[in-house]
Amino acid sequence: MGSQNIQLDKAGKLKHFLSIDGLSKDHITTILDHAETFTSVSKRSSKKVPILRGKTVVNLFFEASTRTRTTFELAAKRLSADVMNINLESSATKKGESLSDTLKTLEAMQADMFVVRHQDSGAAEFIARQVAQNISVINAGDGRHSHPTQAMLDMFTIRKHKKTFTQLRVAIVGDIAHSRVARSEIHALQILGVPEIRVVGPKTLIPTEIGKLGVRTFNSLESGIDKADVIIMLRLQQERMRSALLPSGREFFNTFGLTKEKLRLAKSDVIVMHPGPINRGVEIDSEVADSPESVILQQVTHGIAVRMAVMSLTMGRV
Amino acid sequence: MGSQNIQLDKAGKLKHFLSIDGLSKDHITTILDHAETFTSVSKRSSKKVPILRGKTVVNLFFEASTRTRTTFELAAKRLSADVMNINLESSATKKGESLSDTLKTLEAMQADMFVVRHQDSGAAEFIARQVAQNISVINAGDGRHSHPTQAMLDMFTIRKHKKTFTQLRVAIVGDIAHSRVARSEIHALQILGVPEIRVVGPKTLIPTEIGKLGVRTFNSLESGIDKADVIIMLRLQQERMRSALLPSGREFFNTFGLTKEKLRLAKSDVIVMHPGPINRGVEIDSEVADSPESVILQQVTHGIAVRMAVMSLTMGRV
Amino acid sequence: MGSQNIQLDKAGKLKHFLSIDGLSKDHITTILDHAETFTSVSKRSSKKVPILRGKTVVNLFFEASTRTRTTFELAAKRLSADVMNINLESSATKKGESLSDTLKTLEAMQADMFVVRHQDSGAAEFIARQVAQNISVINAGDGRHSHPTQAMLDMFTIRKHKKTFTQLRVAIVGDIAHSRVARSEIHALQILGVPEIRVVGPKTLIPTEIGKLGVRTFNSLESGIDKADVIIMLRLQQERMRSALLPSGREFFNTFGLTKEKLRLAKSDVIVMHPGPINRGVEIDSEVADSPESVILQQVTHGIAVRMAVMSLTMGRV
Repeated sequence: MGSQNIQLDKAGKLKHFLSIDGLSKDHITTILDHAETFTSVSKRSSKKVPILRGKTVVNLFFEASTRTRTTFELAAKRLSADVMNINLESSATKKGESLSDTLKTLEAMQADMFVVRHQDSGAAEFIARQVAQNISVINAGDGRHSHPTQAMLDMFTIRKHKKTFTQLRVAIVGDIAHSRVARSEIHALQILGVPEIRVVGPKTLIPTEIGKLGVRTFNSLESGIDKADVIIMLRLQQERMRSALLPSGREFFNTFGLTKEKLRLAKSDVIVMHPGPINRGVEIDSEVADSPESVILQQVTHGIAVRMAVMSLTMGRV
Repeated sequence: MGSQNIQLDKAGKLKHFLSIDGLSKDHITTILDHAETFTSVSKRSSKKVPILRGKTVVNLFFEASTRTRTTFELAAKRLSADVMNINLESSATKKGESLSDTLKTLEAMQADMFVVRHQDSGAAEFIARQVAQNISVINAGDGRHSHPTQAMLDMFTIRKHKKTFTQLRVAIVGDIAHSRVARSEIHALQILGVPEIRVVGPKTLIPTEIGKLGVRTFNSLESGIDKADVIIMLRLQQERMRSALLPSGREFFNTFGLTKEKLRLAKSDVIVMHPGPINRGVEIDSEVADSPESVILQQVTHGIAVRMAVMSLTMGRV
Repeated sequence: MGSQNIQLDKAGKLKHFLSIDGLSKDHITTILDHAETFTSVSKRSSKKVPILRGKTVVNLFFEASTRTRTTFELAAKRLSADVMNINLESSATKKGESLSDTLKTLEAMQADMFVVRHQDSGAAEFIARQVAQNISVINAGDGRHSHPTQAMLDMFTIRKHKKTFTQLRVAIVGDIAHSRVARSEIHALQILGVPEIRVVGPKTLIPTEIGKLGVRTFNSLESGIDKADVIIMLRLQQERMRSALLPSGREFFNTFGLTKEKLRLAKSDVIVMHPGPINRGVEIDSEVADSPESVILQQVTHGIAVRMAVMSLTMGRV
């Protein structure tokens, strides 16, 4: 995986943001620190800063995701960029134009940044390898591979609540197999020095090769979240489940749904996270989603700040 | 109907704009006066004012309406706000997220205003009761209940042409039963002191309980518009007519369509209004729509100014 | 064709931009010179100029074209205008509103410019004849009739590479019959004094009346591009071909596809143009599309500058 090289410039600074894999602790800390400055912007009466004024950000969505597109669009607009939303399912590709020609055409229109969402793993890196020198590419989720801004907003949220990463026990619970988030989380947690990372879920939803990443696997929620400092619930990607890997949402809830009662097994100051949108009563009980332990809505807020940070850092506007 | 409380803050000022019902004459006059200042903005070479600069306005449309969305989007942009259009039929709700969670997520993104269009009566108020303290909700039409900005732009248009409301005879003609506009108009006209409000239409299109609102019912166009100062034609909502309440557009035109000839029954300085889009040859003859008595296009212009006024007032930016 | 009158104001300056036909050499040169100033804007770190700040540009697309809409939207945003995208297939026209009423409604919202794309020839001029005095109409392609901004960006590109128009041999190759571009190109080239304009293609794709325009017709690619200074390849509009005028893309390529080998027949400093999106292996070989002779991506870049020029000139903002 060579994204290590491609996403950094010669001075080792972020040029694209494609995956957590290949970044140093310093890169990640820089993003987190920079995002911190933007949380205050979002609280101001006027939430706009002129950092990307006159820049053109193109949302290249090969896969529809209103929620993710909205966060990137908001982040870009609050940086004063012009935003073009291009749904590539309904665009020139239909007319038989190749992806490469579409990209070159958008470059020729002097786009400055592509925010890419694609159903195929590796698509964002593929695009980053194609684009002109001056363009930054941000991965907004590619296949099952990576969703690095989601991982970063989660790290940001953990840092807000926990003093240090180096003594944490973090449990990632649910549909690990279909999650582009889980992989990015694991990389980020490791780089930040988290000593114990657990993946928790039914055998059918945990890839067998996951052990290679240096995480511990649990097939029981109770033991998986035992004394955890942080629980990251994953969305049960029902629409992605193509084969009968799961009996039903209800049955999943009975064994892996996080309830207030089960949550008592974790540490008393545990925080519960979820990338959203949540399936109440499937992977998480409503009572937990709305509990003081839940930081789910804070994650959304932090997501805007983190995306503003990544956008301005990759554009060299700090 | 408790929207009276919810749409006002503790000082009695507009916080949300959900329905005309519950507002005082003073509230309405404040909106009209404020809108007056924005009519000059729209005539200027640059139509932008920085009143909502750095604010995020979210158009939450659960029901498609290009025309209404366009007017709110234009109003928000001319106030320098950032606008996000979210069509909720095609968004996260499809993924099984609850409305409440969608709202909380948008709040967490630091939205400042929701402009809500919904097919169900009461939806805007329901949303206003859910949102965080700092968010304003504008009702852009909910079911058959209310369309208060439409009513306000009509009041604005009447005030432009008639010196006082307290001596007017106003006839509202057409599909009263399916109209969210009619109800809002009646409330606004009453609050402003209009002594004679008439509803005019075939029995099948006038709800039996309408008399309770203190209006006079006419089932003949000729007697209904007799000596009227203002005629408000309603759009025949053909797409809403689910049962066979009407024979045909042509037959409706013969009995309730406003023609130049019938218009002579009204006062000589009558004005003719219509919320648009008009069905020429169904509820209104082309000759009337294009006549000097018609103020239909002025209504559209006033709609932008009134929406700018409501947006800035509810946001406390005056 | 009376667009000559309608697109100019009384002082003879551009008011609308509907077709090349009817413009003087001076009009065209003014646009080209003005576009030159905008090419530097697009290279600046901030690509925004305040020329149309506070103006409302409405993209009225009766026919979907993401690519064309994107270029106009970008051009308008870089001029600091507010842009409203209205897809009229999915809008009020569905509710039975006439085009004329839709236009009047948008005017009443104080739109300043309509960028019109329509499947019918003459639609842009029809609209320009309807709109209020203060509104400018830009033709973004109407039926088979005209696509004047495409012609202008091509002229701009030719001027960048060739010192003078008055000694050029220009070959337009491909589907002349279904091309709205070809007609506009021919007019522009003639006005600029190009002595030899050739149209090249199979008989079925060249209208018989084309000779009247003063161009030479070739049914062989080899003889058509012989010693050409400029080759303009047209897109094979497969989706427009309603009857069986062509055997297949492959067969077309064998006889009219531009290959590196055939390109040797042209002058050694020939430039190859194409309006995009290109069909590699149908009208043009990949090797040619990516060759030093190809200026296809430069055309895209120039397209933004030319559209910025046309928008600011028609709005009297120079």
